[in-house]
Amino acid sequence: MSVSANNPAACVLGVDFGTLSGRALVVRVRDGAELGTSVHEYGHAVMDDTLAATGEQLPPDWALQDPEDYRDVLRQAVPAAIRQAGIDPGLVIGIGTDFTACTVMPVLRSGTPLCQLPGLAGRPHAYPKLWKHHAAQPQADRINALAHERGEPWIGRYGGKISAEWQFAKALQLLDEDPGIYARADRWIEAADWIIWQLTGAETRNACTAGYKGIRQDGHYPSREFLAALDPGFAGFAADKLEHPVLPLGARAGSLTRQAAEWTGLPEGIAVAAGNVDAHVTVPAAGATGPGQMVAIMGTSTCHVMNAAELAEVPGMCGVVDGGIIAGLWGYEAGQSGVGDIFAWFAEQAVPPGYVDAAARRGVSVHELLSAEAMTEPAGAHGLIALDWLSGNRSVLVDHHLSGMIVGLTLATRPPEIYRALVEATAFGTRVIIDAFGSSSTRVTELVIAGGLTRNEAIMQIYADVTRRPLSLIGSEQGSALGSALHAAVAAGAYPDVPAAARAMGRKREAVYLPDEASADVYDQMYAEYLLLHDYFGRGENEVMHRLRTLRERVLAARAGQP
Amino acid sequence: MSVSANNPAACVLGVDFGTLSGRALVVRVRDGAELGTSVHEYGHAVMDDTLAATGEQLPPDWALQDPEDYRDVLRQAVPAAIRQAGIDPGLVIGIGTDFTACTVMPVLRSGTPLCQLPGLAGRPHAYPKLWKHHAAQPQADRINALAHERGEPWIGRYGGKISAEWQFAKALQLLDEDPGIYARADRWIEAADWIIWQLTGAETRNACTAGYKGIRQDGHYPSREFLAALDPGFAGFAADKLEHPVLPLGARAGSLTRQAAEWTGLPEGIAVAAGNVDAHVTVPAAGATGPGQMVAIMGTSTCHVMNAAELAEVPGMCGVVDGGIIAGLWGYEAGQSGVGDIFAWFAEQAVPPGYVDAAARRGVSVHELLSAEAMTEPAGAHGLIALDWLSGNRSVLVDHHLSGMIVGLTLATRPPEIYRALVEATAFGTRVIIDAFGSSSTRVTELVIAGGLTRNEAIMQIYADVTRRPLSLIGSEQGSALGSALHAAVAAGAYPDVPAAARAMGRKREAVYLPDEASADVYDQMYAEYLLLHDYFGRGENEVMHRLRTLRERVLAARAGQP
Repeated sequence: MSVSANNPAACVLGVDFGTLSGRALVVRVRDGAELGTSVHEYGHAVMDDTLAATGEQLPPDWALQDPEDYRDVLRQAVPAAIRQAGIDPGLVIGIGTDFTACTVMPVLRSGTPLCQLPGLAGRPHAYPKLWKHHAAQPQADRINALAHERGEPWIGRYGGKISAEWQFAKALQLLDEDPGIYARADRWIEAADWIIWQLTGAETRNACTAGYKGIRQDGHYPSREFLAALDPGFAGFAADKLEHPVLPLGARAGSLTRQAAEWTGLPEGIAVAAGNVDAHVTVPAAGATGPGQMVAIMGTSTCHVMNAAELAEVPGMCGVVDGGIIAGLWGYEAGQSGVGDIFAWFAEQAVPPGYVDAAARRGVSVHELLSAEAMTEPAGAHGLIALDWLSGNRSVLVDHHLSGMIVGLTLATRPPEIYRALVEATAFGTRVIIDAFGSSSTRVTELVIAGGLTRNEAIMQIYADVTRRPLSLIGSEQGSALGSALHAAVAAGAYPDVPAAARAMGRKREAVYLPDEASADVYDQMYAEYLLLHDYFGRGENEVMHRLRTLRERVLAARAGQP
Repeated sequence: MSVSANNPAACVLGVDFGTLSGRALVVRVRDGAELGTSVHEYGHAVMDDTLAATGEQLPPDWALQDPEDYRDVLRQAVPAAIRQAGIDPGLVIGIGTDFTACTVMPVLRSGTPLCQLPGLAGRPHAYPKLWKHHAAQPQADRINALAHERGEPWIGRYGGKISAEWQFAKALQLLDEDPGIYARADRWIEAADWIIWQLTGAETRNACTAGYKGIRQDGHYPSREFLAALDPGFAGFAADKLEHPVLPLGARAGSLTRQAAEWTGLPEGIAVAAGNVDAHVTVPAAGATGPGQMVAIMGTSTCHVMNAAELAEVPGMCGVVDGGIIAGLWGYEAGQSGVGDIFAWFAEQAVPPGYVDAAARRGVSVHELLSAEAMTEPAGAHGLIALDWLSGNRSVLVDHHLSGMIVGLTLATRPPEIYRALVEATAFGTRVIIDAFGSSSTRVTELVIAGGLTRNEAIMQIYADVTRRPLSLIGSEQGSALGSALHAAVAAGAYPDVPAAARAMGRKREAVYLPDEASADVYDQMYAEYLLLHDYFGRGENEVMHRLRTLRERVLAARAGQP
């Protein structure tokens, strides 16, 4: 049995399911104090090269996961976090979770993932497709073209384009490429909701993923007619495999089952909050639930989330959803598909031994060394402009087939300069997004940064200078897990709603980085150059990025003996 | 005393003055056999950072040399080559030299370099400006603008633009920035001619540098009126500091002085051939003296030289000069300012430890490792296009303020792929030049490759595929020194003219690399992409490269406290 919600020692568990690992965090309900934490790395990490069960080579742009890795987080990380906190598990009154969005999987009516059925372990399409599975671009293209052709009302809510990452594109790829698996999938579900099913024993759906990734607007999925026009076999997709009452965020999805209590060591019957998404759940953790407070969660990619009182269509946004972040407000989402990923790529693939050795000698990371050296020069001194599309462009172009570009290279260009140009490019990309939100009802009034990149001072300063804004920083190192815990507290009845919980449990430090005027002036000029190149390469004036990608696929297919 | 020119054991010396060292080569007159060689590294190498005499910081884009280093080549490399050949120095009947072109210096009427005068060792402008001194771009811009404004007839002979590297631009920079040194310079002379002065004791000028770099056409330098319009103080520049009878290539400039005989250990009084240029002298060494035979000398940069029977104006060529390569033919020159330089930059600045270690383990260079790994993929598989302008663009855009660009980067891009894209970019650059020579009278009928990059099989194959041409290769590892020796044989009277000497002493292997049809088809598509980007960034549609460079100079000047 668990204590009452107003016990001053009451705690909640927040569990954040990321791309490579899951983190559990024990949080005190009355003040948000973080008492203990533990991380469990997924045994199969990301399967983007081969399928672990068979060793089969996966096609380009695939990314799968193994759902048992998610259950292992419940079995490993949750008890370990409780132990680290040193509390009696009986003090825990609720559990909340967040997940990567667009990680979707085919399951039976019982919730069993198809990949766990006898004989299906060797079928790649039976596995969860991770958010960054980008092989459904042709299907996304079909969906977008048809939506515009038919004038579907919902397409404007997604900036005019849905992404290849989303439920519908991935499901259509499944139907196209493995109709047998498609037919056996009773339900098609976000991992964010599937994990709730594991905790409560019953299927639920949450307002966030249903709205942002499931194209559910004003209470409806895309029509049967629309789906039939994509493929007659797809007509019943939404009705058969998605349709389900949708819970508002912070709602109680159910109670912890005996099975899940055994896995986690938590009391049976405690509140389980509705599923949620890593980025969106960070907003209340940063105490930024008001209209105009944009939270940028900067990690391998960046997600920009913000509430507004009104509905507007922002060009290139990923989506606007009623109650998508906070019940009662319109939640806006935008994003950059590659950020920390790009810096990591550079550090691993483009930094010569002299720098790697110097970093080791000084006991710092290559990132720290490059950042420090890059900042010894004034803004503009490297003479470079990059486009930050090495992993495609989510907002505002919504095109995963774009690629990275750098201009201004000379024989005097040094690695820290290129590193800085890449950081600046991602900052320009953020500024494009802020500018896209520029209309009166969605104006950005405060920029709050969360995520792992907040630890890099050079990157933070560049973002302040490029955006000409003071940066607020989230006050927690585990924003997502804290946000999930906060939702658990609401689900358990400790607070009346999420904003109230955010005031008590969220944390934000204001104006931690201030823009430097001289740098900001230079960056204004460089931003103008970035925009010119952004539009030239990204808006159809020169389709070289798409043509190079097509050529690449063709020559690789030819070598593999395919037609 | 020396033997007669028709002694079957007669030898000649060729001395090739490069960017970092000078090479002497002993060659047998009757068949071009290379008997011995020696290299002397310049003590001061290239002064592009600080002036050795004072430690003073040099401005950006400067590159100076110390003329005593050139004399040291005569004192060190020539005797060492004779020793290595094991011949009696009395068998040597002549000496020929070649030099980097556009390496120019202010001297007294006696030939003494101004930097060797008391009190002037600390004046940067008193030193030879190396070819790759690029700080005279503003002066080149003024010369070009005025030439077009006045409709000067000679500007068309240089593709419509003279380069910042040339005599006139560098001399005008001298006048602008250090008029005292300008006034003390009795003569302004190419190092190619200055070294002949050291060997013969008398000033001479050669047809090659006078024509290609000295703007001497149809027997005249630019007019006094033109020069006065640039700057009244510049009016007498050509008449006072350049004017001198010009020798055809292969002519006897004079006889070896006692002083020079002491330096070199060669017989006093032997023939000294007129000055010449490293690239141009390679043409007869490769046995490619006929019209339409283009010789590409590929090293840190690439020089393209070719003879034609007629005068034509080729867009973007560096120059066309009557007798500029072979007396009696029109010699055409074009070039790429960065080639091997770019590959070296990449190998040093952008290759992570894993590759460097693997190269060391296998006992190969990083270049060899990257080339081999890059060629395991079919053409087009990396999805990249680069612009090879990290050191500016000589032909056909004649713009040293352009910079490098790469597009198509993804998180899956690996260093050997970028390396290959850079190699391909230089090959596309060569194809642009070949295409510019495409009119009937200047059509390229054979492509002959010389220079250090001939040793890299991957680079050679890519050039064959990109140009869709069989590649002939020069048959000597020391093409320039062999070419100088060949001119010495003509100057000594052993052959009636340079083509005759080329038939006896030059060497070429035909069709060493043949284009692969499948790769060539892919490269045709990639070349179309290259051309689109070439014109977008290089012909004014987006001046971002120039603006970034200007911004860079401004912020660096601001930091240095300059206005």
